Amino acid sequence: MSNNKIIDLGSSEDPLVLDCGKSIGPIKTAFTTYGELNETKSNAILVCHALTGDQYVASEHPITKKDGWWSLLIGPEKSIDTNKYFVICPNVIGGCMGSTGPNEINPKTGKEYGLDFPVVTIGDMVKAQKLLIDSFGIEKLFSVIGGSMGGMLVLEWLSKFPSYVFSAIPIATTTNHSAQNIALNELARQAIMADPEWKSGNYNIENTKPVKGLSVARMAAHISYLSEQSLHEKFGRNLQNKNKIEFSFDADFQVESYLRHQGFKFVDRFDANSYLYITRAMDYFDLKAENNGSLIEAFKNTNSHILCASFTSDWLYPTSENKVIIKAFNALGLNVSFVEIETDNGHDSFLLDEPEFFQTIKGFLDATYKKL
Amino acid sequence: MSNNKIIDLGSSEDPLVLDCGKSIGPIKTAFTTYGELNETKSNAILVCHALTGDQYVASEHPITKKDGWWSLLIGPEKSIDTNKYFVICPNVIGGCMGSTGPNEINPKTGKEYGLDFPVVTIGDMVKAQKLLIDSFGIEKLFSVIGGSMGGMLVLEWLSKFPSYVFSAIPIATTTNHSAQNIALNELARQAIMADPEWKSGNYNIENTKPVKGLSVARMAAHISYLSEQSLHEKFGRNLQNKNKIEFSFDADFQVESYLRHQGFKFVDRFDANSYLYITRAMDYFDLKAENNGSLIEAFKNTNSHILCASFTSDWLYPTSENKVIIKAFNALGLNVSFVEIETDNGHDSFLLDEPEFFQTIKGFLDATYKKL
Repeated sequence: MSNNKIIDLGSSEDPLVLDCGKSIGPIKTAFTTYGELNETKSNAILVCHALTGDQYVASEHPITKKDGWWSLLIGPEKSIDTNKYFVICPNVIGGCMGSTGPNEINPKTGKEYGLDFPVVTIGDMVKAQKLLIDSFGIEKLFSVIGGSMGGMLVLEWLSKFPSYVFSAIPIATTTNHSAQNIALNELARQAIMADPEWKSGNYNIENTKPVKGLSVARMAAHISYLSEQSLHEKFGRNLQNKNKIEFSFDADFQVESYLRHQGFKFVDRFDANSYLYITRAMDYFDLKAENNGSLIEAFKNTNSHILCASFTSDWLYPTSENKVIIKAFNALGLNVSFVEIETDNGHDSFLLDEPEFFQTIKGFLDATYKKL
Repeated sequence: MSNNKIIDLGSSEDPLVLDCGKSIGPIKTAFTTYGELNETKSNAILVCHALTGDQYVASEHPITKKDGWWSLLIGPEKSIDTNKYFVICPNVIGGCMGSTGPNEINPKTGKEYGLDFPVVTIGDMVKAQKLLIDSFGIEKLFSVIGGSMGGMLVLEWLSKFPSYVFSAIPIATTTNHSAQNIALNELARQAIMADPEWKSGNYNIENTKPVKGLSVARMAAHISYLSEQSLHEKFGRNLQNKNKIEFSFDADFQVESYLRHQGFKFVDRFDANSYLYITRAMDYFDLKAENNGSLIEAFKNTNSHILCASFTSDWLYPTSENKVIIKAFNALGLNVSFVEIETDNGHDSFLLDEPEFFQTIKGFLDATYKKL
């Protein structure tokens, strides 16, 4: 059962002004909540999703019918205990699960945006989240948490709305994409745009679907989410339902079959244009550049309690990238904890059953809640 | 000026029997030579090219008009001195520069093979190379050298025709692809096959060209050839001919522009079906599995002088993979040297100007030549 809600925020008179200079108003935000907001509105935790995540963080996904992507972490008596905390998880703008994005109707034209949707940034996504938090009358979030792109959103909150953040948990993330990160995203975008069914972004209007392009994009991303070790342990050179190689281009190896499956099941739940917009936002994110090269400047007004986490086998946002952030926090004398989780599961670890990771989050939140 | 030659080897009565069970005969082999074969035929060096390499190892490429891919290494008075050695470099079968492959005419039908071309293996490529060497009357190659897939061919020579190999230089290679290697190749194949212009492999007959699919495949490969560090040093987050981001899907970053360029220039010189066949051969290569899990068994008849080389920043065929090979050679008591070159240039290093690497090859060859 879905607890999804969609609300309009802002208005045509009071629109959201985007970093690109354009404005949108009202903007739709789709979100889920779990637990109850207490009277003093001091127990709210904002969960920020990653590139292909959505608001179904701890409840069944309406398309895949699978458990929420962080149901292992969030729920009654879990590490983020919804008997105690009020969890809010909005779909980012630019996304495709109900928030304003390229596959939504442009109220000015009555037609789907497609590539007319303005290029949004991580900053724009956070401005939209801020409107949602304001709509609840929350003046200070007890915590803001997210991994990967979700971690970028957390860092943006810390930089732009520091007084709204009592504590923060950026996980497996960075303050700016490396050339390799940009290259991987560009590969995905080119795969999508190479698909003639993409129709210059007008596939919905033209009643097509860039299934193959989006699928190849997802395969590329999947390779980057796993470590070499985890691929080796999961698949090695095992063959798929056969005893010997078949001298063909079918999926002889399990890893081939797995990737094809990951690609094709993804297109059922995700929108190709959203993939373009969100990867672009990630590539553009650069807290350092927008603060004259200084992360200390970026976080100068931050006074939050912070827990950073990274994973040893994550080569997409390696520990070294996370340490750059911690260095800035330390230089500012903030209350920062850092944990590097030893695991072979690569970048995907933040979504998997990693007991030490979950325990660390629980410990941090419970201890920090006492400091309120 | 090209010194390319093409000869027929084998015949319809005496065909090359492939690992898949099918036969081809005669087979065409396109190759170049440099220097002179001496009277005792003892100064021949066989150069094995990598996935997208070809026979133009030290002479101008007929399509790109660029210098040969190893012109820095091979030539008069260079590390592989063609005043002293006779260098032979054949295009592998399955390739697209004149040797028998999917874009050549099937003599039985008079039409292009396309996907009717049998799936060939690294072993088949070496069997074809052996026919070429026989045609010269060479009974012992002074050396066999190659990097990446070229290194696999070197290892196959050492395993299958050990008495023909006086010395060998496998570089940045492996005896079997990891799950991650297979995954990256599968991504490339899916990108090609996703392109409707691929026409199930019949693009030449149907007068189309899977430019976009092959281009995306090349982009993916390129990311894997470079290290994170080299991408950072080359491009970082530098913008392409602009001062600020443009909030669009154009190539804002230099790394995007570079990848697009790499992709699109590649399709002029390479064939999409060849890319499928050659990556498949690499994925199938497994000297360990075909010797009951024992590399010692695979190389038991080898008595060659061997130099192995790897590069510190190569994450496609990392030093650890190369050490597996060396361990087997050492267990067999072979005369093995190993050098790990310290460089940020990633897997591509073997094609770049790496003076220490070139010097090591020169030193090894000159010293080994005295042992003849």
